Amino acid sequence: MEESEGVAQALVRELTDRGETLAAAESITGGRVAAAVTAVPGSSAVLAGAVVSYATRVKVDVLGVPAEVVERDGVVSEACARAMAEGVRRLLDTTWSVATTGVAGPGPSEGVPAGTVWVGLAGPGTSRAVLLGLEGSRGEIQATATDDSLGLLAREVIGLR
Amino acid sequence: MEESEGVAQALVRELTDRGETLAAAESITGGRVAAAVTAVPGSSAVLAGAVVSYATRVKVDVLGVPAEVVERDGVVSEACARAMAEGVRRLLDTTWSVATTGVAGPGPSEGVPAGTVWVGLAGPGTSRAVLLGLEGSRGEIQATATDDSLGLLAREVIGLR
Repeated sequence: MEESEGVAQALVRELTDRGETLAAAESITGGRVAAAVTAVPGSSAVLAGAVVSYATRVKVDVLGVPAEVVERDGVVSEACARAMAEGVRRLLDTTWSVATTGVAGPGPSEGVPAGTVWVGLAGPGTSRAVLLGLEGSRGEIQATATDDSLGLLAREVIGLR
Repeated sequence: MEESEGVAQALVRELTDRGETLAAAESITGGRVAAAVTAVPGSSAVLAGAVVSYATRVKVDVLGVPAEVVERDGVVSEACARAMAEGVRRLLDTTWSVATTGVAGPGPSEGVPAGTVWVGLAGPGTSRAVLLGLEGSRGEIQATATDDSLGLLAREVIGLR
């Protein structure tokens, strides 16, 4: 978690300085993004909260992912990741949000191979998703998805390219 | 996390056998309870999801904790822990739920010393909260609160005394 900790610290510091806030919608990372952010003292000033949407009905009923997206694209898709990020940003009324959806394994889920991960990012005037192809055990895929989504969020917020 | 992993495995196995489901409302543990459960392969059959309610407004607006409870008892209280557990169980429509609220530190928050943690538990016909007094660094308090709340939940579900 050391890499995540440094990135989370930089994110919390930057958002605190700006007076901006953050939310997460986590499926494949299962709470690990929120855990990494809340490891940083003072993170309560920036993290409004997170929704761990493990069941599809939580994605639809709580985060507001359109049922058509689930039916047409599936829950591991660019459209679902974007809708999750936009949904949690709206629900928790934050400046920024990050979302993760993917297959941790072991083995594929509904035809999607383990390691397939979409990371959704939403902020003022922006909404997009990034596809990751990860390898390793279930635990390694969950950990790398956490590190990578925090890194993508930090780049989006801080503007590092 | 080894202790949590064993408890989480036993919980997932028992709930799977029974066809029952689980939700978490996490403040002080910040996603760590959900992370421990989702580390177990097959946990998607039992964990509907979790709400990390770091900001007080998320406890009230998303989980439905009564504003009077926040004003009268504070967010680190028996009443708030119970309301969080009952709220997430209702929101995610699960058989069981666990909730955590407390002060991780460093230092006290609104007069409540670091290490003060209330764990809420809700299930069929039951709702209660348990007070923990933990010691250590911010990270140690977060980790112990995670282990202890999973242990309390397992005892409540499986009936170990």
